[in-house]
Amino acid sequence: MWQLYQFPICPFSRKVRLVLGEKGVGYELVRESPWTRRDEFVDMNPAGQTPVMVDAGRGVVLIDSQAIVEYFEETVDKAVTINGTAAGRAEIRRLTSWFDMQFYRDVTGPLLHERLIKRIAHRVTPDARALREAMKGAVGHLDYTDYLLDHRQWLGGATMSLADLTAAAHISVADYLGGIDWKGHEQTARWYRGLKSRPSFRPLLAERMELVGPPSHYDNPDF
Amino acid sequence: MWQLYQFPICPFSRKVRLVLGEKGVGYELVRESPWTRRDEFVDMNPAGQTPVMVDAGRGVVLIDSQAIVEYFEETVDKAVTINGTAAGRAEIRRLTSWFDMQFYRDVTGPLLHERLIKRIAHRVTPDARALREAMKGAVGHLDYTDYLLDHRQWLGGATMSLADLTAAAHISVADYLGGIDWKGHEQTARWYRGLKSRPSFRPLLAERMELVGPPSHYDNPDF
Ligand SMILES: N[C@@H](CCC(=O)N[C@@H](CS)C(=O)NCC(=O)O)C(=O)O
Ligand SMILES: N[C@@H](CCC(=O)N[C@@H](CS)C(=O)NCC(=O)O)C(=O)O
Repeated sequence: MWQLYQFPICPFSRKVRLVLGEKGVGYELVRESPWTRRDEFVDMNPAGQTPVMVDAGRGVVLIDSQAIVEYFEETVDKAVTINGTAAGRAEIRRLTSWFDMQFYRDVTGPLLHERLIKRIAHRVTPDARALREAMKGAVGHLDYTDYLLDHRQWLGGATMSLADLTAAAHISVADYLGGIDWKGHEQTARWYRGLKSRPSFRPLLAERMELVGPPSHYDNPDF
Repeated sequence: MWQLYQFPICPFSRKVRLVLGEKGVGYELVRESPWTRRDEFVDMNPAGQTPVMVDAGRGVVLIDSQAIVEYFEETVDKAVTINGTAAGRAEIRRLTSWFDMQFYRDVTGPLLHERLIKRIAHRVTPDARALREAMKGAVGHLDYTDYLLDHRQWLGGATMSLADLTAAAHISVADYLGGIDWKGHEQTARWYRGLKSRPSFRPLLAERMELVGPPSHYDNPDF
């Protein structure tokens, strides 16, 4: 049985969970708070980051959300999430990296730091300026997803793909942390409503962190 | 004909060039300095980053070094760089991400910022403390590659892989910028000497940036 080391609002773990959900791969959750840098966890993953997936029976340890997703793409035929032509797959991987790097750098990363880690690990209040910057960053990024969805059915092309799952993972964490203003982003809101009602997404939306809760619209699929 | 937008000591572009060299894929270099944020370049890649690969004839644009490498893995059979079992390939991708993320964050990124971009774009001198931190970071990272090479023939396992090419790309840029102290890292030095003499690597080692040059041992395969 696979075990997934994660915490409820880690965007990279959510990306993995959405893929596993679509593919119907079972797993057990193990709660890990990477900011505590627990010795046994750092021994397993020298980067000290979630997600990590372990199949103890077979001695397999998978590290890094993209390496994990590529592993399940290669080993499970159901619900291919990196699909289409080679150029189409490159576009899906570009957008996946866009959310994991640019969106995380501008939005999810700062929000997690200000609203979650400062609260839980350091017991200090968030920096108002950093929060404003992250929310401004989110507006720019949703302008870009609106633009993409003006030209395409899904973010990466004509079918749902890893680009959508990764974007939804990051956006859902930003939304949980109060960083998304949905006004003026009708295209992205419509696309996101569709994803929110998928069986792979529902369990994620039901989970809560201690101390830090989401706004009331967060788990409503018809927000 | 493929065109590769890059500058001589961009580690992500070097990773792509090493893969293309091993696979025997031809391409033309186009010089791009991402820190200038040239309009036409940002229009092509909204992330504003090198490398970008373009095949104008077929209208294909590839963005993000990992998306580019996966594209050529999928389309060119020669010299598979992500090889072995699914778990083995996951380990290669973990290490690739380790160098692209952790090594870049700790070593290559700060060195490029302090020694190249500050000099070329801002005409200011580097911060001595940041340089010391980056060099200390490099020592920790080479301790890790020494450890891996104590247990394995190559970084990712029994054969050369993308993990080695990516590590060599980053280490070569750090070495160019004077950030690597080879003393005490005999395992990694021996592995690196082997890579340096590969035909895919020689052209990279011959290239120079304006204003910022490498130390004398840099392109010597027997340093
Ligand atoms: N490249 C990694 C990034 C994972 C990551 O940044 N995880 C965060 C939590 S959401 C973390 O563990 N941060 C702690 C740290 O970087 O020390 C992946 O895709 O899995
Ligand atoms: N994830 C990208 C990272 C590329 C990257 O960071 N490139 C650097 C040059 S070595 C860059 O363009 N930096 C400018 C910027 O980030 O604005 C990849 O793997 O291609």
